[in-house]
Amino acid sequence: MTRTPPPLIDSTCAAWEEVRSRSPLVHCITNSVVIGMTANAVLALGGAPAMVDIPGEAGPFAAAASGLLVNLGTPTTEQRQATREAVAAAKGAGTPWVLDPVAVGSLPVRTPLAHDLASQSPAIVRGNASEIIALAGGGAGGRGVDATDDVEAAASFAVALAARTGGAVAVSGPVDLIIADGRSARVRNGHALLTRMTGGGCALGAVMAAFAAVESDAFVAATAASVVYGVAADVAAEGAAGPGSFAVAFLDALAGLTADAILARGVVA
Amino acid sequence: MTRTPPPLIDSTCAAWEEVRSRSPLVHCITNSVVIGMTANAVLALGGAPAMVDIPGEAGPFAAAASGLLVNLGTPTTEQRQATREAVAAAKGAGTPWVLDPVAVGSLPVRTPLAHDLASQSPAIVRGNASEIIALAGGGAGGRGVDATDDVEAAASFAVALAARTGGAVAVSGPVDLIIADGRSARVRNGHALLTRMTGGGCALGAVMAAFAAVESDAFVAATAASVVYGVAADVAAEGAAGPGSFAVAFLDALAGLTADAILARGVVA
Amino acid sequence: MTRTPPPLIDSTCAAWEEVRSRSPLVHCITNSVVIGMTANAVLALGGAPAMVDIPGEAGPFAAAASGLLVNLGTPTTEQRQATREAVAAAKGAGTPWVLDPVAVGSLPVRTPLAHDLASQSPAIVRGNASEIIALAGGGAGGRGVDATDDVEAAASFAVALAARTGGAVAVSGPVDLIIADGRSARVRNGHALLTRMTGGGCALGAVMAAFAAVESDAFVAATAASVVYGVAADVAAEGAAGPGSFAVAFLDALAGLTADAILARGVVA
Repeated sequence: MTRTPPPLIDSTCAAWEEVRSRSPLVHCITNSVVIGMTANAVLALGGAPAMVDIPGEAGPFAAAASGLLVNLGTPTTEQRQATREAVAAAKGAGTPWVLDPVAVGSLPVRTPLAHDLASQSPAIVRGNASEIIALAGGGAGGRGVDATDDVEAAASFAVALAARTGGAVAVSGPVDLIIADGRSARVRNGHALLTRMTGGGCALGAVMAAFAAVESDAFVAATAASVVYGVAADVAAEGAAGPGSFAVAFLDALAGLTADAILARGVVA
Repeated sequence: MTRTPPPLIDSTCAAWEEVRSRSPLVHCITNSVVIGMTANAVLALGGAPAMVDIPGEAGPFAAAASGLLVNLGTPTTEQRQATREAVAAAKGAGTPWVLDPVAVGSLPVRTPLAHDLASQSPAIVRGNASEIIALAGGGAGGRGVDATDDVEAAASFAVALAARTGGAVAVSGPVDLIIADGRSARVRNGHALLTRMTGGGCALGAVMAAFAAVESDAFVAATAASVVYGVAADVAAEGAAGPGSFAVAFLDALAGLTADAILARGVVA
Repeated sequence: MTRTPPPLIDSTCAAWEEVRSRSPLVHCITNSVVIGMTANAVLALGGAPAMVDIPGEAGPFAAAASGLLVNLGTPTTEQRQATREAVAAAKGAGTPWVLDPVAVGSLPVRTPLAHDLASQSPAIVRGNASEIIALAGGGAGGRGVDATDDVEAAASFAVALAARTGGAVAVSGPVDLIIADGRSARVRNGHALLTRMTGGGCALGAVMAAFAAVESDAFVAATAASVVYGVAADVAAEGAAGPGSFAVAFLDALAGLTADAILARGVVA
């Protein structure tokens, strides 16, 4: 006997309202390129970001945080050690965590680390199509941080990866695809300007960690984060004159979201 | 016999004019989240920021700089070593320095470092209420970088801490409190949007270092920095649609300040 | 027998169109202050930035990239090792690379590294007047990242340095000077607000790497990058209320450039 789940747009609104009311503490270990933008995105969303990425502190902090993001964009030796500490502590404490395996594929330091981390039960893995394919064992990754594969081409790899992690897998692209245990969702919000702003994908990983902090179903959390993020991008793109003003408007839009706007604009199925 | 000091708003204007005319070289060792915003804030103020945070260079640079900020937000091994070098050199050369003990309290690497640094005669210690209480020995710190205590609850701790450091202690919050050797000031400028922009507190530490570079009375310097920073925030908030446009407008406002605007808007007593 | 080269404004447009159509992969090893702004500038230009700055990855990535930037602004131990790997790999693979010797002169870690790197055949060296003079052996450098020397005072040093590197040398300032093997160009675009935005010079280095990726004549590449960058600044300054809104408008302008705008506004001879 199965119950019909509520429409994803309703669970999206519910999760977003939880983020707003609880302001989860989101522990981020992320790359130096997007670290400021990521903190600003979590703040605009209504969460409380904390970028604790040194050995000795990352473990205890992850145990106390409500959600954790691990992004492998610029993984220094200390960040890699902090990551291992944080993930172990998150697992021990039940802190849901998100893996963003930036540029996994052929780069020789992050690639084995990403594969190892993927075996540590991330609630959500978020990447572009090339990253998800590579992490699932199906390719050599994209070109730097850019995807060279289509989202739909990554679907079967995402299914296989989700089966392995036991969590959700989110493939970002023109249409975002979220996969978990027999379920799938496609989010048709978002805008191409997100790809012209550094951190457009990376900050989404942190937003997913904020949603995972308040919503225990990782599929719902990843989907809700994608809808909310995409709706904010849609709003921001309307008045943007280019990638600079888009980034500014995106933070304003994320901060100014309402449940009505999410319901009216969210396109997810 | 004591002289009546000039009103704080007058000394604020005078110090600000000194910063503008002398463009002090402000050496910053700060966290990776806010480092760009911090440099932009010092530039907008009229100072010359330089982020020299590696061992071997931080010492000589601190000796030559006009002011130094040490912010413990993401204290890597190299930054911790650079910090010790820089503070020792600053003390030796008479460079005034500001300590921002981000998230001091329970985190096991930065907490002992912050306590040790607090004993090295910082001209100014700047933090939120939870950080000042923790550094003064009165609590376990806040939640990540967020204060969980009220500014006024930190007042007695700030007094004790200032007695120990021999300098000024600034508690940032809805009302900023500045304490030094029997003096206190409260600054009622500033805006809640500063807390929704990453670096809102951290960049103030660098601005305080710029003021300390030109004003030898650390109490006056810390107070003037808080007023100027808060007035710029007040101006910026007027036209801001959210935290993204606020951050942009804040830099514009800081760059566009005039003595008249400071006099007209500054609320300090 | 020599052919008359095409006017520099024509080769600028041609190179810019190549950047737009080929979207070169630009590998950046740069400082933590400007790393986000730099990625955003390359994206706005139309390139594909990738900030791969750890040992073990920087070498293979530089060999595969279309251009490389090495900026010495905050050279941690790992970045210095990554830099050596990347430059060696770039040389081996024929990847053109740009050296930005930030604050070279008296700082004891970066200065010998910069001199050593200058002997590794950078296609372009970009710096302010004080940095170029110091790297050419003629002075002790500026004050932090600020030039204390005039561009024209650096001209003879730039000629000597270009003779040594075999590439182009670009001196940034109110008028940009580009020197290579008997040729010189002066670019009169750009705006003082670039100096009030952190990364105003550093991001230009990455833009030069993008141009060098598509234009094998380093003199043409460096000149074209300076013109395009300066024209975008000119456009941005028209509507800017200060350094905050300038930075935003600059990215919009860089993304929105047209060949017509470059032709109409570029001032180079």
